[in-house]
Amino acid sequence: MSVRVDGERLLRELAELAEFGRDPAGGLTRTSFSAADGQARAWYAAKCEEAGLEVRLDGLGNIVAGLPGGDDEPAVWSGSHLDTVPCGGAFDGALGAVAALECVRRLAETGRRSRRPVRAVVFSDEEGNYHHLLGSTAIRRGFSESELAAMTGRDGDRLVDALEGWAWARGSRTGTRVDPARVHAFVELHIEQGPRLEQHSVRIGVVTSIVGLGGGLVRFHGRADHAGTTPMDARGDALLAAARFIGAMPDLARSSGPASVITTGRVRVQPGGSNQVPELAEVSLDFRDPSRDRVAAMLEAIDRTAQEAAAAYGVTAEWDADEIVDPVPLDEGIREIIRARATDLGLSSTDIPSGAGHDSQNMALLAPTAMIFVPSRDGRSHVPVEYTTDEDAIAGADVLLATLAELADS
Amino acid sequence: MSVRVDGERLLRELAELAEFGRDPAGGLTRTSFSAADGQARAWYAAKCEEAGLEVRLDGLGNIVAGLPGGDDEPAVWSGSHLDTVPCGGAFDGALGAVAALECVRRLAETGRRSRRPVRAVVFSDEEGNYHHLLGSTAIRRGFSESELAAMTGRDGDRLVDALEGWAWARGSRTGTRVDPARVHAFVELHIEQGPRLEQHSVRIGVVTSIVGLGGGLVRFHGRADHAGTTPMDARGDALLAAARFIGAMPDLARSSGPASVITTGRVRVQPGGSNQVPELAEVSLDFRDPSRDRVAAMLEAIDRTAQEAAAAYGVTAEWDADEIVDPVPLDEGIREIIRARATDLGLSSTDIPSGAGHDSQNMALLAPTAMIFVPSRDGRSHVPVEYTTDEDAIAGADVLLATLAELADS
Repeated sequence: MSVRVDGERLLRELAELAEFGRDPAGGLTRTSFSAADGQARAWYAAKCEEAGLEVRLDGLGNIVAGLPGGDDEPAVWSGSHLDTVPCGGAFDGALGAVAALECVRRLAETGRRSRRPVRAVVFSDEEGNYHHLLGSTAIRRGFSESELAAMTGRDGDRLVDALEGWAWARGSRTGTRVDPARVHAFVELHIEQGPRLEQHSVRIGVVTSIVGLGGGLVRFHGRADHAGTTPMDARGDALLAAARFIGAMPDLARSSGPASVITTGRVRVQPGGSNQVPELAEVSLDFRDPSRDRVAAMLEAIDRTAQEAAAAYGVTAEWDADEIVDPVPLDEGIREIIRARATDLGLSSTDIPSGAGHDSQNMALLAPTAMIFVPSRDGRSHVPVEYTTDEDAIAGADVLLATLAELADS
Repeated sequence: MSVRVDGERLLRELAELAEFGRDPAGGLTRTSFSAADGQARAWYAAKCEEAGLEVRLDGLGNIVAGLPGGDDEPAVWSGSHLDTVPCGGAFDGALGAVAALECVRRLAETGRRSRRPVRAVVFSDEEGNYHHLLGSTAIRRGFSESELAAMTGRDGDRLVDALEGWAWARGSRTGTRVDPARVHAFVELHIEQGPRLEQHSVRIGVVTSIVGLGGGLVRFHGRADHAGTTPMDARGDALLAAARFIGAMPDLARSSGPASVITTGRVRVQPGGSNQVPELAEVSLDFRDPSRDRVAAMLEAIDRTAQEAAAAYGVTAEWDADEIVDPVPLDEGIREIIRARATDLGLSSTDIPSGAGHDSQNMALLAPTAMIFVPSRDGRSHVPVEYTTDEDAIAGADVLLATLAELADS
């Protein structure tokens, strides 16, 4: 198998994609279901059409693209996401999404006949503005109307409102589950988002497992009052409780385990006037560990800590926890193929765990799944300076293409 | 002097005004320079026009209305504000603004000739979305272009952008200062926003002094990183420093003095993704005390506390303090008139200090100034349940009218 990706086209398309959601201050803000996300999807769909690929959408905006037909056989899937965090970079998600498109297109261009179809996938809202790994969770298990109705984004907006008039979804929002029998394997190319490959001068990371992930919102409910006329001791200040809670998170993570992390990345205060005592303080939680037990223990400890913080200020706390995303080992058979194809291409490789969550976490529960990592400069990601070299981006895509081709015939 | 306000008209107009910015959840959100604020101003200007009053605007949207002419004599001013806090009530500001209009209109209707003109005033952004007491500070001293350019609202939006295309401003934004020689006296009717008048069954509060007020923004600057791949000890989390800082404020207020209050009413976190370590955490400050020295000491202590909190988490802090609004005693001569006119009207009255800041604080530096308080149910304000009875609203307006009439001839 000697087919290689069109490296120039890959880099050009990565650069084109990086124009959607560009911040005047540098970086990219292409949050899910934003206008910029819609522009990126329109661009992606146009590229598929040019290449003769058929685009299928589900009710939450997941995209599956491939040559028409071939539905008699379970397909080999590859892909990632087009959405970014606020003020993020041009590689997280984008590389895997563009490379999968390139692989499917290259295989079509060669006219090569494989046993199984290969399809390129774009998952919705991987970055979790509304729900962590929204699209791939929807593919794995589906969501109920009431679950969807309760999802709100960082601006307090509702997912169901964001979906109103959204052009890039079709059909039922609750009927998104994919039959595992339809998927033969899934492979995702992604940047490492950590410093290890770079530090050890290794070109290809073969991901062994993905960390377990918990999330949710803690809401402290107090009483709004006038900032000038309400004595300190007569207040029920929701933000004071939230501040105490936030301050307790680092110790909670440390007492959980050396690989445990907890992040409180956003806070929403209501009513929000500088001269009003806060009535509501809502804090987002993101907590991870390679062990499911430790993630579950953190989930419980967060609840206890929130209740204690609320009691200290005479307010109440409510812990709205998301379902835990289990840590998952990735498929050893596909990992073996990735290692071998990297060696064929003259690329060094190493086993590496993933501290970041990925859609592969959901796909691994549906079908044999693996991930390919390429180096991130200084290990930085989710920031404007996120960067992977041209050579590494192309090398990762070449390994992906060779792996997909082998899976399509196996 | 037997002229009285048209109580029915006063109540009807208060109810009309309360339709602008009504929240579906109850309460009013008519923040400064919002669409709802614009609707309220259009309504106010139409009422003035119906009554034959001339409306003058300045470059920051302050409104002064009265019968045409009379500019040879220093005028007697009365008024308050039309803007509200987010999810506030229908009386704070509104009562004083509508009552002043009613008084000027009633005096015009009676055809009574007074020595000095009486004018109704609406101050911009009293609630300080962009700057506490923006409009009255602009009238007292004016702002420079650079001061205005630096002002941002709770959503991070800039005042100068909000003013672009704003219909209710005319002329220079920096040329708003009013010559003290143009104003003979200022009287503001307002709800108490505390429980004392209600608790003692007194109808009219004669305000002795207004509390001193400090404000500003503390910004903690850290480093944005990926929430999954960045170990706890490798982070520069701006929000952790902010949480420690916020938690220290109640003790700082208590150690300042029994009447000191400090409020952190809003927090802005960037980049704001639930899976991103916060790079910026901005906290609003509002702190008050009847003594200027204690307000100044709190301003210094806030800076020290912010620096300590930043150092504890390896981030930096910047304290962008507003100019202190001095506590001010109100004019004893006008207070005497208010007491006497309340007695004439058969209304009990008592001296009372104001814990809330008011535009009268700025006006007192320009001209002899006084305030009339009427009871607030349960002492609540800045909330949807804020309420003053019809009888108390009318009584307050009657005392205001009698006081203005006397000042106009004195």
